[in-house]
Amino acid sequence: MGQGQSSVFDLAAVAAASNGGNNDPLLPPARFIGAPQKPSSMPYTKYVAYDKQVPFDYPERTWPGKRLQRAPRWCSVDLRDGNQALVNPMDAERKLRFWNLLVKMGFKEIEVGFPSASETDYDFIRMLIERELIPDDVTIVVLTQAREHLIRKTYECLKGAKRAIVHFYNSVSVLQREVVFRKDRDGIKKLATDAAELCKELEGDAGDIDLYYEYSPESFTGTEPEYAVEVCNAVIGVIRPTPEHPMIINLPATVEMTTPNVFADQVEYVSNNLDDRDAVVLSLHPHNDEGMGVAAAELGILAGADRIEGCLLGNGERTGNVDLVTLGLNFLTQGIDPQLDLSDVPEIRRTVEYCNQIKISERHPYAGNFVFTAFSGSHQDAIKKGLEAREMAAEAAGAELDRFVWLVPYLPIDPKDVGRSYEAIIRVNSQSGKGGMAYLLKANHNLDLPKRLQVEFDKVVQAHADATKKEVKDEDIWRLFKDEYLPVEETGATLAGDIVGDVHDDSLEQWGRLKLLKVAVSSGEDGSDTEMTAKVLDRGLNVGTDEEVVREISGTGNGPIDAFLHAVQSFGIEARVLDYAEHTMSVGTDAMAASYVECEIGEDAEKRVLWGAGIDSSIITSSLKAIISAINRSQR
Amino acid sequence: MGQGQSSVFDLAAVAAASNGGNNDPLLPPARFIGAPQKPSSMPYTKYVAYDKQVPFDYPERTWPGKRLQRAPRWCSVDLRDGNQALVNPMDAERKLRFWNLLVKMGFKEIEVGFPSASETDYDFIRMLIERELIPDDVTIVVLTQAREHLIRKTYECLKGAKRAIVHFYNSVSVLQREVVFRKDRDGIKKLATDAAELCKELEGDAGDIDLYYEYSPESFTGTEPEYAVEVCNAVIGVIRPTPEHPMIINLPATVEMTTPNVFADQVEYVSNNLDDRDAVVLSLHPHNDEGMGVAAAELGILAGADRIEGCLLGNGERTGNVDLVTLGLNFLTQGIDPQLDLSDVPEIRRTVEYCNQIKISERHPYAGNFVFTAFSGSHQDAIKKGLEAREMAAEAAGAELDRFVWLVPYLPIDPKDVGRSYEAIIRVNSQSGKGGMAYLLKANHNLDLPKRLQVEFDKVVQAHADATKKEVKDEDIWRLFKDEYLPVEETGATLAGDIVGDVHDDSLEQWGRLKLLKVAVSSGEDGSDTEMTAKVLDRGLNVGTDEEVVREISGTGNGPIDAFLHAVQSFGIEARVLDYAEHTMSVGTDAMAASYVECEIGEDAEKRVLWGAGIDSSIITSSLKAIISAINRSQR
Repeated sequence: MGQGQSSVFDLAAVAAASNGGNNDPLLPPARFIGAPQKPSSMPYTKYVAYDKQVPFDYPERTWPGKRLQRAPRWCSVDLRDGNQALVNPMDAERKLRFWNLLVKMGFKEIEVGFPSASETDYDFIRMLIERELIPDDVTIVVLTQAREHLIRKTYECLKGAKRAIVHFYNSVSVLQREVVFRKDRDGIKKLATDAAELCKELEGDAGDIDLYYEYSPESFTGTEPEYAVEVCNAVIGVIRPTPEHPMIINLPATVEMTTPNVFADQVEYVSNNLDDRDAVVLSLHPHNDEGMGVAAAELGILAGADRIEGCLLGNGERTGNVDLVTLGLNFLTQGIDPQLDLSDVPEIRRTVEYCNQIKISERHPYAGNFVFTAFSGSHQDAIKKGLEAREMAAEAAGAELDRFVWLVPYLPIDPKDVGRSYEAIIRVNSQSGKGGMAYLLKANHNLDLPKRLQVEFDKVVQAHADATKKEVKDEDIWRLFKDEYLPVEETGATLAGDIVGDVHDDSLEQWGRLKLLKVAVSSGEDGSDTEMTAKVLDRGLNVGTDEEVVREISGTGNGPIDAFLHAVQSFGIEARVLDYAEHTMSVGTDAMAASYVECEIGEDAEKRVLWGAGIDSSIITSSLKAIISAINRSQR
Repeated sequence: MGQGQSSVFDLAAVAAASNGGNNDPLLPPARFIGAPQKPSSMPYTKYVAYDKQVPFDYPERTWPGKRLQRAPRWCSVDLRDGNQALVNPMDAERKLRFWNLLVKMGFKEIEVGFPSASETDYDFIRMLIERELIPDDVTIVVLTQAREHLIRKTYECLKGAKRAIVHFYNSVSVLQREVVFRKDRDGIKKLATDAAELCKELEGDAGDIDLYYEYSPESFTGTEPEYAVEVCNAVIGVIRPTPEHPMIINLPATVEMTTPNVFADQVEYVSNNLDDRDAVVLSLHPHNDEGMGVAAAELGILAGADRIEGCLLGNGERTGNVDLVTLGLNFLTQGIDPQLDLSDVPEIRRTVEYCNQIKISERHPYAGNFVFTAFSGSHQDAIKKGLEAREMAAEAAGAELDRFVWLVPYLPIDPKDVGRSYEAIIRVNSQSGKGGMAYLLKANHNLDLPKRLQVEFDKVVQAHADATKKEVKDEDIWRLFKDEYLPVEETGATLAGDIVGDVHDDSLEQWGRLKLLKVAVSSGEDGSDTEMTAKVLDRGLNVGTDEEVVREISGTGNGPIDAFLHAVQSFGIEARVLDYAEHTMSVGTDAMAASYVECEIGEDAEKRVLWGAGIDSSIITSSLKAIISAINRSQR
């Protein structure tokens, strides 16, 4: 800053003081119910609104009405910008593993390092070249500052490469011009054009490499867009790209400073005002300081950007570079080929976590452990119905299910398409409703519970969840169901201890009074004259006697169930069937059947409505077991 | 779906098939250098572009030209939507701890549970009410489905509360209408208005509670906006809110399905078409499936939303609800009071991680361990200069530094404002340049190295970093500096083992040949006739003899340095000073001085330029030590 020139701090202090506009007591608060929010003690007056730091508006914008159409050109900067931000940067083995992943995923541009500044980078790039590890269709990018000995060293490092992009940059922001470089606009622009000229001048050192350039007006988001365009056009004027031999102009959101609509305006403005636009690949390099890096990239693409630089799963300085996995899969959800192989996200995650030595979050889009998990009961119910409806629709259309149109509530993407399973989808905790439990019983145990049985059993599951305060795992649900509805093993012991640990749960008692030992059914031409005899073990439990008696009972009716209900009257049990459902549990002659009956048991004031369930290879036996299940439950 | 009505799957299959538009081979690829990207094997044809699922355009939009002006009304849903998404939902102790944090932070609306569906929620809400833990200016929100017994139970749970918002919802999306509810538009709308009527009807059960309503057209993002408005207006027609007694209409981005500009269009459309707009608090409930939840919230606020529902640090189903900490601090960066106390982010993070039992990512905006850390050398250099420039500007303005305008490269926020320190800012790894090392020496050891000394010492640090491949910690840098420039303790042993473990580093050798034992200086009126005698221990190292000799040397010059340089000629050492700098290391009479000299040592072809450093309470001794430091280094 020269004498008499006002400092960015002075201007900012004035702007911050006039922030009043934003915190104007005359500006009414957002509408609300109850009491208003109170001013906090946060020192907001020291921050200057972005539009006061970099005033810019672009009413000519067209991007808000546009939609994503095609994948951008991808460039991974994992081995450079990502690597530089690690506590322990990658060694050669990790770098090579990362490189191999990137190549396999289909990246055609990979920034591999800053060879003039780091021996490790230099050696790694030499290894790629000498071992011929760079496929013909992959172009490496190397970063350098534009100083003679650094450029010479960069070119020396590239010897033997077929094709490379030399990426040079200088910071052009208002703030850095003053506090870091202490130069005015022309001085900073000259740094850029001098750099470009030096690159061109030293090109001879590069040998036979097919050489391209990338220029970044670093700290673009802190720069007046008009000035950024001026600098970029000056660089373009030196490099003289052609449509056949283009150059890259890369706009770094070095620091994300405000909402992404402003960034998109800037991108559209730059795109419309660059010289030789058809000889320029317009690239974005978003960071994520305000948590909107992905949005900045996507809106920037709508605004005219051709290319995106970023890292897998959002590694990079501070809050990271934009996440290329999320971006790519966001394109997939729009029916657009991402032109990257993202079919094995768990493998991508493993490699990235190994190489970067940083864990990603459980809620990281597409890759986190919980992101295909629905704990909410209503979500689970909707997912279950959605998956069923989709299956039916695919069958009706004669389409292969895996390729059939994906429309499932709460799941924007088919977990299988990214290498994940449906297993994790439904997890049950004390906040879940019956949907999850029903889904798990169906998916893992082939039991398709009738709706009202779901309601009934849900109370059992919820009581268990409320008591344990833990996630209810699939195996818990299955054991709760068995314990509640199905005969226990002959020991007759309670399973409660196995299931809930120390918590005693009254709903879990042993099987109950009756056990079916044998059954014989006969009927005539139709079932209305069904006769049945059954041998039943009566343990007498809960009816005043502990004596075990085997009884033979018989009854007639319009079918085995009706006949059995008549037969059990000899135990003094009055039961009526209100609802009944049955299904096979698999395909084939040895398939088991599952039966569910809703019974009204007892008389008058004692009447209770209860479900019973039975599983047997015989549909008769399974039905009768279901009735016994309901009766036994009524007598617990 | 009725007979003859076409299924959403049929329509979607047609739309997906016509995705051709997006993947049209006639649509040229984005501009690129080198080889084009290849089609992947990802099954993109099964996904339907959002604008084909929910066709909508809103050219009347005004939000892209707007900027954030004021904080929205905040509502935390951590205890409900967040809690429901946990593997282990919170117990009462954790819930209470979370509640206390929310109240302390300044939330005036807190969704506390789904009391009619969960005993845990019910008991917790009763505790809040009975123990009088709800401040007068805080309003609780309870979620319920609109069924008679659930509403009755909800009101029962609220007994004794002063004020509450009853939040009811039903899913209105195209997909859920068909696969979950199997109702047409009118049928689904009737579910909503029936629910509203039932709420009003049962209001009598609520006793003296000051009762408000919130309605959510669940799965709003999968719904035609026109229809969502139709349903919301029908509900408004039943509830009949007034500006004095408003209701909340909450638009859930239940699943984030596309870019946030589309969501913002929808929000502005709804805002402009709601009945009784001035009696409605328009709320958003963004999720984060595509990683753009924060952006959706901010653009939605530009588009007219009054209120945001979300969770601290982005907990919630799948990828989480929108992160209210990030949102609030994003307002702060724009000079806007967030009206939330976010001054202790580490404490917020500890509580949230404890209650949710989920760790957040190292790169989580504002709260992650690495987000105020700059590993890049050029970033570090710029930060250092920025902090210095800001300090100077604050001093010039006579302003308190902590409140002075914050403009620092790469740091969008002052770490101190969110309860973090500067310590983490600068971390040095093998990818860092000299800026970080220089910053650490200055910040922690009061050594302000001249620029060319930074360049020289940087090579030492880089050699160490390249050799160890590890982060170079502050203590490593300090020991490297001592070992390179300062006298070691009398043992004379190498420190290398201490510093680099198993790695042997040739740059780390013992102190060297000469050691200053005593010095006497005299001069006349001015320094030009300075005479000096010094007693120097000559270890003879590296000059062919290991014999230790104490020698007295003397010389004259225009100052002590010049005189000393003459004196050391008696050792056969030719040295000239090229540059010199000195500073005190602290304030006060007992302060130490640090001296740095750049010397040219040796003659002709043997000539080397080297820096030396010396620390002493006497500025004379520190200078001479610095010269000896340079000489000793030249002889290693």
